Amino acid sequence: MKTISKNIVPRGFKFAGIHCGIKRKKKDLGLIYSDTPAVAAGLWTTNKMQAAPIQICKKNIENKIQAIIVNSGNANCGLRQGRKDALLINEWVGRELGINQECILPASTGIIGIPLPIDKIKKRVSFLVRELKEESDDFAEAILTTDKVSKQVALELKIGGKEVIISGVAKGSGMISPKMATMLCFVTTDIDIDKALLKDCLKKAVENSFNQITIDGEMSTNDTVLCLANGRAGNNKLQAAGLRLQAEKEENRNLEKFQEGLNYVTAYLAKEIVKDGEGATKLIEIEVQGAKKEGDAEKVARRIANSNLIKAMFYGESTNYGRIAAAIGATGVDLKNVDIHLVGNKSKIKIFKQGYFINVDEGLLKKILEEKEMKLKVDLNKGNFSEKLLTCDLSEEYVRINK
Amino acid sequence: MKTISKNIVPRGFKFAGIHCGIKRKKKDLGLIYSDTPAVAAGLWTTNKMQAAPIQICKKNIENKIQAIIVNSGNANCGLRQGRKDALLINEWVGRELGINQECILPASTGIIGIPLPIDKIKKRVSFLVRELKEESDDFAEAILTTDKVSKQVALELKIGGKEVIISGVAKGSGMISPKMATMLCFVTTDIDIDKALLKDCLKKAVENSFNQITIDGEMSTNDTVLCLANGRAGNNKLQAAGLRLQAEKEENRNLEKFQEGLNYVTAYLAKEIVKDGEGATKLIEIEVQGAKKEGDAEKVARRIANSNLIKAMFYGESTNYGRIAAAIGATGVDLKNVDIHLVGNKSKIKIFKQGYFINVDEGLLKKILEEKEMKLKVDLNKGNFSEKLLTCDLSEEYVRINK
Repeated sequence: MKTISKNIVPRGFKFAGIHCGIKRKKKDLGLIYSDTPAVAAGLWTTNKMQAAPIQICKKNIENKIQAIIVNSGNANCGLRQGRKDALLINEWVGRELGINQECILPASTGIIGIPLPIDKIKKRVSFLVRELKEESDDFAEAILTTDKVSKQVALELKIGGKEVIISGVAKGSGMISPKMATMLCFVTTDIDIDKALLKDCLKKAVENSFNQITIDGEMSTNDTVLCLANGRAGNNKLQAAGLRLQAEKEENRNLEKFQEGLNYVTAYLAKEIVKDGEGATKLIEIEVQGAKKEGDAEKVARRIANSNLIKAMFYGESTNYGRIAAAIGATGVDLKNVDIHLVGNKSKIKIFKQGYFINVDEGLLKKILEEKEMKLKVDLNKGNFSEKLLTCDLSEEYVRINK
Repeated sequence: MKTISKNIVPRGFKFAGIHCGIKRKKKDLGLIYSDTPAVAAGLWTTNKMQAAPIQICKKNIENKIQAIIVNSGNANCGLRQGRKDALLINEWVGRELGINQECILPASTGIIGIPLPIDKIKKRVSFLVRELKEESDDFAEAILTTDKVSKQVALELKIGGKEVIISGVAKGSGMISPKMATMLCFVTTDIDIDKALLKDCLKKAVENSFNQITIDGEMSTNDTVLCLANGRAGNNKLQAAGLRLQAEKEENRNLEKFQEGLNYVTAYLAKEIVKDGEGATKLIEIEVQGAKKEGDAEKVARRIANSNLIKAMFYGESTNYGRIAAAIGATGVDLKNVDIHLVGNKSKIKIFKQGYFINVDEGLLKKILEEKEMKLKVDLNKGNFSEKLLTCDLSEEYVRINK
């Protein structure tokens, strides 16, 4: 596994990103095109309020896919004409690319509840298609909303002697607390893989990346992760165990390699999203272990990760750590036996031992709090369940962005 | 029922508030004394992490009570010596007042996890007792933390021809999202009432006041509501139905009157707390009706009331109301049939109808958003369960106070 230049795309894929007028100045319309029909897998928000493009994605994803069309600045969500508008865009893009519109997956991100200015999109579809090229910089820019930086990663694997590329592009950066899905993320790869297997791999990768981040505890209406695999790498097709022709061992190793690559791409992008969270100045990993029941570790980790008081404490680098124990207690989980550590780059400090605060070296604590990335480790000392979450701090800027 | 000057106290009660040195300058030690032993009722936080004074309160409240001792600036929470410290304070106060220390209820509020400077308290107990007087201004000031204003209310009732006074003093103003209990609130009254009945009345009053507010979704470790009734008004004792001697009808009416008075006091203080929420500039009532299941209405109301994005929207008076529907959907409640209204002082506007956003008069919407108090009304149109919550907006100041 080798990371390569972030904007490199897999064989047969082209990307484009332009300004069409949904936003005032910035790029707001993106397109991914595969010259070869690709198998596709997707995961979406579990919010009951789902944007129109998601409904179309869920239907079209059963087909082989050749394009993904994305707009930013408007979520196309909660509107009677939402579905009709998204279908029209698919129709225009399909016509321009010369492909069936049911081979296109749409996605939107931005403000909820305002009709999409589809005429502006219509006028620019043909230009968008002409802009397609073998790198993803413009596309990565075109899908951003309040993100400060674009988020891309690409890597190269050897699968059965063939070179396989996996590329990922994502955006954040508010309303981020996915559960079984996430913000927008588009993974493309030239690997040849069975559709059901791709779906499995994507699910595993998302479970340990995007589902373990939270910026503000808010669940989006538009969260979408899509993965296209067009087979252009020419490897022996990765098949689920029952369908395999080749030696089991080599197949397993190849699948493992692909899963590792996919995990890397999604985990990298998940971390980038939290680092660029609205108003974020710090990245904090919350690790809860020793839970008695499966749900307890996640409950405690989410309560801490979404606590305004704790996030403001990290932002202010203040030692008001009593808030951490208060948040744990608020979940109903017993505090007897609990230990809490704050872990910095070079040092580690215990702040709570067996259910009670202890005298700490304030100087050392301050030093860790001043770092840009740290880990808060909670050991419930009751059992074997654990959970990890990535979160960021809460600054005045979050309020300024969202007011 | 007649509201009277806020700092008037019931017959037989005296209040004091002084500076003892837990805080730098402001008052931080308060005392309530009743010359007549009073029946008492209490409710406390359901957080598993409970401050030491709460544990002592829960035991002592079985006795007739003559004093409440409160410090602010330090929560006496999560410390091995917490219980011992709180008992020592009770001992000193008891000695100074000449009463049994088990007739004293302690309460603390402030920073969690730091030992109480009990020597500072010890030195000032005798001065505190000398400061006792028949008004509650100093006490109301002495229990504040980040509150900007003190919160007091008093009213007068006629119960069976006798004049009864109910007085309430409370503090907020962060870490406020009580469930079955609340921040600090001390209600004193000179009514003569059966202990079990007082507890019932207090529970009802709290259920519809303090349990319906949220500032930041954070649950405190020190939430305490105490109510003392010393019987000095000389009314025929209010008894539970089984114990009554008098005509049922008049008794019922007297009890109703007292409950109304108590409800008024707690609701008034609850509203004051939200208005003075950390960084708050607006008061918003969230009313959810038409829920199919009992828990649904509360789930939706709490999700909205604790959403940083919605609170920031109210603060910015911005029309990004798509966030409201997103928050509802995030609870798993279906949005089909949902209607949403924003209700101002003089006008009302529908923003979401039968599951979709509708074209709104932006000018009118803006005008309502600019008001200081408003109501957000969500009708799920599925059944008969409803819930009300009071909340405030989220400003940069909340982060500044807590960083």
